[in-house]
Amino acid sequence: GALARAGLARMAENGLRDKVLSLDSMNPWVKRVEYAVRGPVLVRAVELEEELRQGVKKPFTEVIKANIGDAHAMASAPSPSCCQVHQGPQGLRVRSEGHRQSCGGGSPGLGEQGLRVTPGPCPLCAAPAHPSLSPQTMLKLLVSGEGQSRTGVMIPIPQYPLYSAGIAELNAVQVNYYLDEEHCWALDVGELRRALRQARGHCQPRVLCIINPGNPTGQARSRKVIEDGPSSFAVGKEQLFLMRAAEGESCSQPLLSCLGPRRSLDQPGPSLHLSPPRCGLRGGYMEVVNLDPAVQQQLSKLVSVRLCPPVPGQVLLDVVMNPPKPGEPSYQSFIREKQAVLSDLAHKAQLTQEIFSQVPGIHCNPVQGAMYSFPRIQIPARAVQEAQVRGFAPDMFFCLQLLEETGICVVPGSGFGEREGTYHFRMTILPHVEKLRIVLKKLSQFYAKFIQEYS
Amino acid sequence: GALARAGLARMAENGLRDKVLSLDSMNPWVKRVEYAVRGPVLVRAVELEEELRQGVKKPFTEVIKANIGDAHAMASAPSPSCCQVHQGPQGLRVRSEGHRQSCGGGSPGLGEQGLRVTPGPCPLCAAPAHPSLSPQTMLKLLVSGEGQSRTGVMIPIPQYPLYSAGIAELNAVQVNYYLDEEHCWALDVGELRRALRQARGHCQPRVLCIINPGNPTGQARSRKVIEDGPSSFAVGKEQLFLMRAAEGESCSQPLLSCLGPRRSLDQPGPSLHLSPPRCGLRGGYMEVVNLDPAVQQQLSKLVSVRLCPPVPGQVLLDVVMNPPKPGEPSYQSFIREKQAVLSDLAHKAQLTQEIFSQVPGIHCNPVQGAMYSFPRIQIPARAVQEAQVRGFAPDMFFCLQLLEETGICVVPGSGFGEREGTYHFRMTILPHVEKLRIVLKKLSQFYAKFIQEYS
Repeated sequence: GALARAGLARMAENGLRDKVLSLDSMNPWVKRVEYAVRGPVLVRAVELEEELRQGVKKPFTEVIKANIGDAHAMASAPSPSCCQVHQGPQGLRVRSEGHRQSCGGGSPGLGEQGLRVTPGPCPLCAAPAHPSLSPQTMLKLLVSGEGQSRTGVMIPIPQYPLYSAGIAELNAVQVNYYLDEEHCWALDVGELRRALRQARGHCQPRVLCIINPGNPTGQARSRKVIEDGPSSFAVGKEQLFLMRAAEGESCSQPLLSCLGPRRSLDQPGPSLHLSPPRCGLRGGYMEVVNLDPAVQQQLSKLVSVRLCPPVPGQVLLDVVMNPPKPGEPSYQSFIREKQAVLSDLAHKAQLTQEIFSQVPGIHCNPVQGAMYSFPRIQIPARAVQEAQVRGFAPDMFFCLQLLEETGICVVPGSGFGEREGTYHFRMTILPHVEKLRIVLKKLSQFYAKFIQEYS
Repeated sequence: GALARAGLARMAENGLRDKVLSLDSMNPWVKRVEYAVRGPVLVRAVELEEELRQGVKKPFTEVIKANIGDAHAMASAPSPSCCQVHQGPQGLRVRSEGHRQSCGGGSPGLGEQGLRVTPGPCPLCAAPAHPSLSPQTMLKLLVSGEGQSRTGVMIPIPQYPLYSAGIAELNAVQVNYYLDEEHCWALDVGELRRALRQARGHCQPRVLCIINPGNPTGQARSRKVIEDGPSSFAVGKEQLFLMRAAEGESCSQPLLSCLGPRRSLDQPGPSLHLSPPRCGLRGGYMEVVNLDPAVQQQLSKLVSVRLCPPVPGQVLLDVVMNPPKPGEPSYQSFIREKQAVLSDLAHKAQLTQEIFSQVPGIHCNPVQGAMYSFPRIQIPARAVQEAQVRGFAPDMFFCLQLLEETGICVVPGSGFGEREGTYHFRMTILPHVEKLRIVLKKLSQFYAKFIQEYS
């Protein structure tokens, strides 16, 4: 009303308004959170789309957003959440009916009767509103202490910045261990030991995050390799809390075996599985084993405060955890679609590696378990200097130039973390194969030109 | 594998396992979070259901969960999210198609092309994964300082414990102001002034949360009353950050006008609208106005880290923000259903107040803008003593006794906060009217017996 407006006018006069909330008075950790996947390159991409729409002449006719892996935007099939409004697949209808009957048509929260995702003797199970919340919820319990006794959280570098952002948000200490790019982003126990030793000087490392398959790196190791190496290291004498998460999606059939839902009852510490974040339904589950029952109660309370996830995600998760069986209505189409999707992804992964490998200065590991490639690129010293002058990380500079000249939007490696002096970008392999081929070639040609220009 | 198992066995031997994460080494604020809505009464209710299923004899044949307002579980219509899998309402199909076309079938995040919830010159808009996240996200920005300069957040008492839990989680200081029960839970500026003055001794109050309609109290004030009184107070010389949230649902038609979506461009500070959390789709929106652009960028970043909400919730929110217009396919059925639902709720609100008002010792305000009643009950001194002996708040003791004898599950007022020496419970008014009448009568009879027993 009038009084409020008068107050506003008075504040504007006195220059007081900024005192209510300014960058200086804001929670300081918020500034430290970084999230490159939706950073400056994407902001510019959206601007360029608008310019194209207004008829501004560009060296390209469309912006290709290869920065994220939105399967439904890239592929011809719309998101299942759109589908289901139009005409739900028969299998999903059956599950939905089962869900409705089990919870009386309501949306049950954790601990109430309803859909039980992974019934078992021991694990606490939750289908969070968004998968990204589950590692964060677990981390919240683990963070304590001040100064040198503040909790340290070991994460792989490169990693999806959800983890680093979550650590910054909790004011915990990020402890980097580096994946071995020369061996297809392997996780080496010697490197874990080094990172742990160094961190002990300035924080108390309590958590080891193992992300398999990784994102953006997409490496996928077998369960045995992870359990015999890094997992044993964590739960052995080092006494770390083990957080296992799956970030990538499989792009070849055999890898599914290390991705699928499972019970890790023989694994001390929690194990997390994040379902694909791009399905438009945001289902996920968290499985925690061998937790002190008193702490488990506290975790249960924290999850309850968030209420339950949307019902469609719960139904979808049921399908993910219990895929159609032979004889069930959707079995044939499920198998057909799954095989088609997987062989298409395997083909595109292969194509990506092939084309990039032919370009001098680009090194591209096999694309194993993510919908992304993460090639390393050499950047000439003159380009590095130019980037520094403009206040950009060198690979951010490359990505912005690439966008301006070709309309291709990818994410700089610096947003995921990378070894000092190395540069990368992340690009989705999801476009249709013919479009992907064109994008890969255009990108390669631009890179050659970029190298020449700054040599 | 074998090594991990060996490690586990070794830890068990050495009694070391608890050191990884115990109640003592856990983040201390987690313990402070309270969430009574899903607390001990519900835990016992679930146990009783199981006992009934196993054939144990009880003084009742079913547990009636009147603790939460799950409209779809209580009413005959299943949740829209179940509906939509079976056969989406036509209006929702049309919107879904529009959404699919605008974002290419994908699930756009904030800042990308796609559904824009409240386009306008100034506000930042977001449809969070869960409505409960939006006040928390805003609070995150506002919390800073240590000791006496730590941010204080003013919240109404009683309130939905989401707010107190969020404040505890951020280690901010909760500053209570009390709603005036004698005047139907009115918000008095004199009380705001008192709370602010007292708080300034031990923290720095920076935020005023106004929740209208309230939950569990359900009071609903007109926009004018809120703006001329409490809002002006906040944005005047007190320089508080104003957070306005809607928690309840309307239960009578005229009140809709103070609930609907709106742009508060003339209001300094943020305004939040939380859509009904029980629709099974968890859509919500946050509208922030007059924010320092640099802070707005930071908020945008924080929201982006969470990725976007599930697509069905986005589509639903579009329908909430832009309800069917005359001539559109769903208009007639929308109006018919809306009127039927509202008149049914108004009838049940009336019935609740009528029945409770006949019981000596129970005081029940009119049920205005929530799906709950929140009656005050006198508890005899002997019952208060008995509760203390057993380690319960007196109204928790009452609710547990009520559950054991009648199977009726309600939430103790102490879970929402209440004035010292007053006791309440929250009960949903959603059951079918004939069932509601029986529940109200049973509860009243039990209360009379309880009073007699402890007098």
